[in-house]
Amino acid sequence: MSDPVRPESVLDLAVTAGRLREEVRAAPPLTHCLTNAVVTGFTANVLLALGAAPAMVDIVGEAGPFAGAASGLLVNLGTPTPEQREASREAVAGALAAATPWVLDPVAIGTLPVRTALAHELAARRPTAIRGNASEILALAGHSSGGRGVDATDGTEAAAAAARELADRYGSVVAVSGPVDLLTDGERVIRIANGHELLTRVTGGGCALGAVMAAFLGASLGTGTDALTAVAAATLVYTVAAEQAAETSRGPGSFAVGLLDALSAVTPADLRDRARVEEETR
Amino acid sequence: MSDPVRPESVLDLAVTAGRLREEVRAAPPLTHCLTNAVVTGFTANVLLALGAAPAMVDIVGEAGPFAGAASGLLVNLGTPTPEQREASREAVAGALAAATPWVLDPVAIGTLPVRTALAHELAARRPTAIRGNASEILALAGHSSGGRGVDATDGTEAAAAAARELADRYGSVVAVSGPVDLLTDGERVIRIANGHELLTRVTGGGCALGAVMAAFLGASLGTGTDALTAVAAATLVYTVAAEQAAETSRGPGSFAVGLLDALSAVTPADLRDRARVEEETR
Amino acid sequence: MSDPVRPESVLDLAVTAGRLREEVRAAPPLTHCLTNAVVTGFTANVLLALGAAPAMVDIVGEAGPFAGAASGLLVNLGTPTPEQREASREAVAGALAAATPWVLDPVAIGTLPVRTALAHELAARRPTAIRGNASEILALAGHSSGGRGVDATDGTEAAAAAARELADRYGSVVAVSGPVDLLTDGERVIRIANGHELLTRVTGGGCALGAVMAAFLGASLGTGTDALTAVAAATLVYTVAAEQAAETSRGPGSFAVGLLDALSAVTPADLRDRARVEEETR
Repeated sequence: MSDPVRPESVLDLAVTAGRLREEVRAAPPLTHCLTNAVVTGFTANVLLALGAAPAMVDIVGEAGPFAGAASGLLVNLGTPTPEQREASREAVAGALAAATPWVLDPVAIGTLPVRTALAHELAARRPTAIRGNASEILALAGHSSGGRGVDATDGTEAAAAAARELADRYGSVVAVSGPVDLLTDGERVIRIANGHELLTRVTGGGCALGAVMAAFLGASLGTGTDALTAVAAATLVYTVAAEQAAETSRGPGSFAVGLLDALSAVTPADLRDRARVEEETR
Repeated sequence: MSDPVRPESVLDLAVTAGRLREEVRAAPPLTHCLTNAVVTGFTANVLLALGAAPAMVDIVGEAGPFAGAASGLLVNLGTPTPEQREASREAVAGALAAATPWVLDPVAIGTLPVRTALAHELAARRPTAIRGNASEILALAGHSSGGRGVDATDGTEAAAAAARELADRYGSVVAVSGPVDLLTDGERVIRIANGHELLTRVTGGGCALGAVMAAFLGASLGTGTDALTAVAAATLVYTVAAEQAAETSRGPGSFAVGLLDALSAVTPADLRDRARVEEETR
Repeated sequence: MSDPVRPESVLDLAVTAGRLREEVRAAPPLTHCLTNAVVTGFTANVLLALGAAPAMVDIVGEAGPFAGAASGLLVNLGTPTPEQREASREAVAGALAAATPWVLDPVAIGTLPVRTALAHELAARRPTAIRGNASEILALAGHSSGGRGVDATDGTEAAAAAARELADRYGSVVAVSGPVDLLTDGERVIRIANGHELLTRVTGGGCALGAVMAAFLGASLGTGTDALTAVAAATLVYTVAAEQAAETSRGPGSFAVGLLDALSAVTPADLRDRARVEEETR
């Protein structure tokens, strides 16, 4: 990563992330998740480790009202059953009506037809944030993608233009996950070089980050923190904890366990010490 | 907790819990679980750690006959898809026809309409036991509740009257989970002060206890142990193991792993040494 | 286990298993899993630990095309919802059209009617491999079985004739899991005595092996390795890692974590040192 354009922003983000991290613990944001069957338990545990209050309500007739009462909402399309598809639409409508911030994670879109159509439909409802790997962001922007299922086969920089385009089109923060995370609101671009390769060896390593973003967006309401900063703060907390977990793990099994422990323990000081962030403005 | 009304009952319960715990290992009760998608793996692992035989059969056309052949049944309403709702009704009918003991866990009822209606419908079938946090027990009894999803926002004592009322109404044992667990059959009230706050930081920390209750109810059949004692024994075993796990954990991740290890290893002597139980009779 | 009939085959299999294990890491096979809700997260983590690329695509309209593009497919019938049943048929058709190797795991068939009917229907499509415990293999062959749900109540030798019969009938490799795994293509029979009892105390301990078989079948395409050898190699890698994990675990919780670590670390030399294999030809 090149030298940061605005070095002071590194400290700024770390400080904000530390404050939001404490806020999540002090006033647990009710974080509503419609997520895939593979990662639902891990995702709930990630939120609980941070002190947030997860609720995996994905039933038609319940998801709509619940999204209206929640602090933040995640809609992850990893295993979109017919029930979940309908509940997702309902939840998004509920979130929009109540101004609940919401995150769309278009898992493995591109060639898989059901989720791809749903992702485009939901993106048009203008999510607060969109999170994906480079392949997914390229696919959502309508660029051709080499994605084969859930793999990230493109580097995050390859999706930088697509991310900006989506941000402009939908008024969303767009977060591209990879070795260096790239986040943009269309004007500012934040790059975060924290994290660890073991995150890609645990199922839900990326999906759970979408839930953390929803929790941090919820916690940031009323604090004057903009959505890009809240989403970047979530990314920083999550990836710093991943680094800490990797230092004591013996493989992907103990890493996943250690990540939950680290998310519970990570401090504002850890974030300041470890943050590797740069920011530029278009 | 005040001094126990019947001190000898502490030792009584610990001894019975130790005997049932050994019985589960010696003759694994086939424990049929219809539970929510978030905790199904963890719940099965909790049962396996104790030596029970879990079977997560929640398919229409299978759940009914299976409940008739099982030793115990759990119906947990955490993610009640249409398929699960229909399978739940079928399983309860099968359990009733075969006199299989069954546990109802009305997760997050109150304002969520689908599960709330189903919980009332199934409660009217007179479960052997009902397990929930204070908010859920208050909601099931028809009292107003401040519950917001899956949180327990009320202490267990706040639900003591509602628990007795439900016990009388449905002939059920009612178990209210919290820092001090409160269990009643309408006449006797048992309080168990074991456990650890980390149980609330692991998804399924409460839900899995419902499955353990179903296993212990199954193991107690034919032993002359009443349902309240079996359910209290399950609670004691589970919460003592949680204390043991907390002593060596570094956070919620390692705690969940340690809980499974402790459930596998916990002995009758551990239960006698650690039990903090009191009992009173109305 | 008696002395091996062909001692050199032990070394042969260990060498091939080591080569395939490295191949999985070097060129991750896209492993398509339709599996049950209880074990889907653990199964994905097992594949990721080995370096394979899991994709849990079980949606109607997606499962068919995806199976055609995947390296290997697992169809596990543990929680066969209507959506999954239809998606399974679609995935199998897609795999057959594209010559994708596929594994059928007929979980808990016998008395449960929905899955039993589906297992017979899918078996008739001639899976590359069929994996089950003795009860399940006996039930699939049409022999009477004492199975009660997901338990293995018969030793693997009791299912040897049924396994050979199924292999002949469907042209499949048949793998019977138990204390000694028995694998056959109808002509050759391989027995593998590695593994550990703790595998039966972790949910998905058997189911995840079916996914590893699908990954190894995918990795073996074009290498000249026959399907029986690929399936046996998967079994050897998995059960040797289980032995390694058991050596440092304190119970089923830490064992499951250690298994993922061991699957990530297991080397060809470990396989050669630890393999306890014998082979005979009918």
